[in-house]
Amino acid sequence: MASRWQDVQEQWRDWAPILKVLSVLWLVLAAFMTVPWLVLIIEEEPDARAFAQSIGIVLGAVALSWLATLRVEIFLKPWQMFLVTTLSWVSISTLASLPLVLGAPQLSFTNAVFESVSAITTTGSTILEGIDTLSDGLKLWRGMMQWLGGIGIIVMGIAILPFLKVGGMRLFHTESSDWSDKVMPRTGGIAKATLAIYVGFTLLAMLAYWLGGMATLDAVVHAMTSVATGGFANSDASFGAYADRPHLLWMASLFMLMGALPFVLYIRFLRGARMALWRDQQVQGLLLVLLVVILSLTGWHIWLGIPPGEALTHVTFNVISVVTTTGYASDDYSSWGALAIVAFFYLTFVGGCSGSTSGGMKIFRFQIASILLRNQLRYLIHASGVFPTRYNGQPITDDITRGVVAFSFFFFLTIAGLALGLAMMGLDIVTALSGAATAVANVGPGLGETIGPAGNFAPLPDAAKWLLCVGMLLGRLEILTVLVLLTPMFWRR
Amino acid sequence: MASRWQDVQEQWRDWAPILKVLSVLWLVLAAFMTVPWLVLIIEEEPDARAFAQSIGIVLGAVALSWLATLRVEIFLKPWQMFLVTTLSWVSISTLASLPLVLGAPQLSFTNAVFESVSAITTTGSTILEGIDTLSDGLKLWRGMMQWLGGIGIIVMGIAILPFLKVGGMRLFHTESSDWSDKVMPRTGGIAKATLAIYVGFTLLAMLAYWLGGMATLDAVVHAMTSVATGGFANSDASFGAYADRPHLLWMASLFMLMGALPFVLYIRFLRGARMALWRDQQVQGLLLVLLVVILSLTGWHIWLGIPPGEALTHVTFNVISVVTTTGYASDDYSSWGALAIVAFFYLTFVGGCSGSTSGGMKIFRFQIASILLRNQLRYLIHASGVFPTRYNGQPITDDITRGVVAFSFFFFLTIAGLALGLAMMGLDIVTALSGAATAVANVGPGLGETIGPAGNFAPLPDAAKWLLCVGMLLGRLEILTVLVLLTPMFWRR
Repeated sequence: MASRWQDVQEQWRDWAPILKVLSVLWLVLAAFMTVPWLVLIIEEEPDARAFAQSIGIVLGAVALSWLATLRVEIFLKPWQMFLVTTLSWVSISTLASLPLVLGAPQLSFTNAVFESVSAITTTGSTILEGIDTLSDGLKLWRGMMQWLGGIGIIVMGIAILPFLKVGGMRLFHTESSDWSDKVMPRTGGIAKATLAIYVGFTLLAMLAYWLGGMATLDAVVHAMTSVATGGFANSDASFGAYADRPHLLWMASLFMLMGALPFVLYIRFLRGARMALWRDQQVQGLLLVLLVVILSLTGWHIWLGIPPGEALTHVTFNVISVVTTTGYASDDYSSWGALAIVAFFYLTFVGGCSGSTSGGMKIFRFQIASILLRNQLRYLIHASGVFPTRYNGQPITDDITRGVVAFSFFFFLTIAGLALGLAMMGLDIVTALSGAATAVANVGPGLGETIGPAGNFAPLPDAAKWLLCVGMLLGRLEILTVLVLLTPMFWRR
Repeated sequence: MASRWQDVQEQWRDWAPILKVLSVLWLVLAAFMTVPWLVLIIEEEPDARAFAQSIGIVLGAVALSWLATLRVEIFLKPWQMFLVTTLSWVSISTLASLPLVLGAPQLSFTNAVFESVSAITTTGSTILEGIDTLSDGLKLWRGMMQWLGGIGIIVMGIAILPFLKVGGMRLFHTESSDWSDKVMPRTGGIAKATLAIYVGFTLLAMLAYWLGGMATLDAVVHAMTSVATGGFANSDASFGAYADRPHLLWMASLFMLMGALPFVLYIRFLRGARMALWRDQQVQGLLLVLLVVILSLTGWHIWLGIPPGEALTHVTFNVISVVTTTGYASDDYSSWGALAIVAFFYLTFVGGCSGSTSGGMKIFRFQIASILLRNQLRYLIHASGVFPTRYNGQPITDDITRGVVAFSFFFFLTIAGLALGLAMMGLDIVTALSGAATAVANVGPGLGETIGPAGNFAPLPDAAKWLLCVGMLLGRLEILTVLVLLTPMFWRR
């Protein structure tokens, strides 16, 4: 018996700090919920009650956790970091869905969780129909969930993933991702600066959208979902509601792009390194990809007879939207012909920069892969040759190579596995493949009639929605962070 | 002027041995052409003239090359091997198309080249309609082209690719792939033994099919295209012509599988290593994949209400057909529902064993990739751990890892690029993606209404057919063999 009790105590010592960290994050979530709650109280909307109840439930969970972990110190070992990372995204996504179940849309649990996972992971796929008629509080909440997820992923990308050595992210292991006590204060400084920039960009976007003619609430929500590269809009037509106001599309393109660049570079820029952004190989790569794709597709559309201005605006907006993994649509690009469909399918995988709010494979992995491929071709010719392997001025170590390769393989395997599961539920091959890809890359719209840019995820069977939730979370957590938890070795430690 | 002349002389010294090797291969082609020619003469068919003309043209080319290279010794440096490899497949595919242009089907140059490239690369996609009514000589020629391509790829896989270090094939660098003078005789011995086994299997298949009730010519052609994992059949319905004779489907399954196992293992088996086949990790992997896929899909079909016997026969036949990259179809499996379509799309990529007649990614690359992925997950947990990396008893060196990774990336990039090109020509996404995949993996049928297992490649635009030819050749040559030729470094040597 004594030994049994010791076992339990030991288990608790392991799990208590994890619970404590999670409860802090839940408290932040509850604090966020008060904003739509207050708005709904002021507007005397019935949804206010749903938020009050949700806040109550979340605070209850926080209180219980705090009571249980009163004297526990927060100090996490690496394996606990893996658990905290995964559990925080899963628990926050679930808790954030409460207002959607309790509020006016009265969503089923499946639909509500799908919507909130899609929000928190900044994916932007939606099962809601009649978004235009939602209460202001719910619209705001959808935007705030994405905004919260956006800052979450930046902090994770800067401070946690490089430390966990996931997917070659060690490349971005700077002083800010060193978790030894000595530099902790500096990490805190960078986190604060990042938050300040994120808030600043969001305020800027709000102002711009508002000056551009959006209603106040629309400006607020779209600002949050643009900078977070989330993609929730306040209309069933997505950004198509502004299709006739090109200046808004161009503004959104800019803000999505700002959200997809590495936030540490903005800090360096503000600290005086004025060229930090332009000299970064990752930024150069992203801009080059966008330039090539936008010019090619625009040219193709002009050749097909679409007026040049219209072609450029809509191609730019939708390409940036998909590559930054935002997922707004200004138009049903799946009606742009065979080439556009295949092109947008590929763009779903790309993603923005590491240390930003965007998902996908991320540009640096393509760049490192292409360096490896080029060297491999050279090696076939000169077996004894030594070829440069540097990226952004840093040597590409074997460690990073293996991380990048493993991530790429797992990324495609996850999508392939998910698509197979979706096909088992009867989804056709285009819906299954594009649905799996858009979930894991955290983009938003898929292809095909159901989940395409003009569609909605509501008609999918419940099991498919759960699979897609798993995909969105896996993608957001760079896959390996979660897969590690599934190895026996992790639990044997 | 003198230096100019010296330049030309030097160029000639480089190219003459290449031309001489090619002309030997063309002579073999001409010898093969005499068989259908004789058959057509005996049967007094007008197509005989087409073969006589074709033989004349090929022999003309051989004679000219020999005259020009009379005193040239055949000794090839590595860079010349790359050129010989690519040029031999391209030139033989082109020359083999002559009887199709000159003969009764009177194919356009594009269609004829598509058909012969598809044949020589043992892909098995066809543009011919009314195959059942072709002359015996042409049916035989289609089979012989695939049979020739089949032995070509085995020899290349055993003796040339490991030497060129392409795509991690160095794993299979045995004494037989060492091209230094000392072991040349042994290589010759292995080549002869391989040929003997290949001929033996073909004769066995002929006999089995014939005893099983096929007409003589059908037995001969199907034997050749089964063992070569080619997939050309003598009917527009492919192997569907025998859908009601399960014993023939099971025989074909066996022969396709025999063609997809490493031929060196058969030699070892005959030399007394009775367990060589079963102890080989590649063979184990292929059999395991087939077992899992066949049992799952059969179970799924039984659950859908198909009689168990019928489900097992057709699933086994079509899965083996696609995985071994043969490409026969006994049924339109694209009408088997959403899951089957996605499953067959994935199976298109798999491929059989290295050193066999089959194409695709090949099993060993999946196995090495999965070892790497498993180790990467372990590494995330124990950064300082050392994990075993052996395959088939050999250590997986960095060299092999890089080769496998580079091949995998290039394989998917080639398919992606090809699919984009096909989409530009207006092909829908399913046709474009599956068409590109089936070409590069040398499988045969794609998905969708046009090029699916019940379809035909004839309706595609000419430009698409040329693109697919490039894809088939790239796939057959393990991509990097050709890509090397496109690097400036290759020509700078």
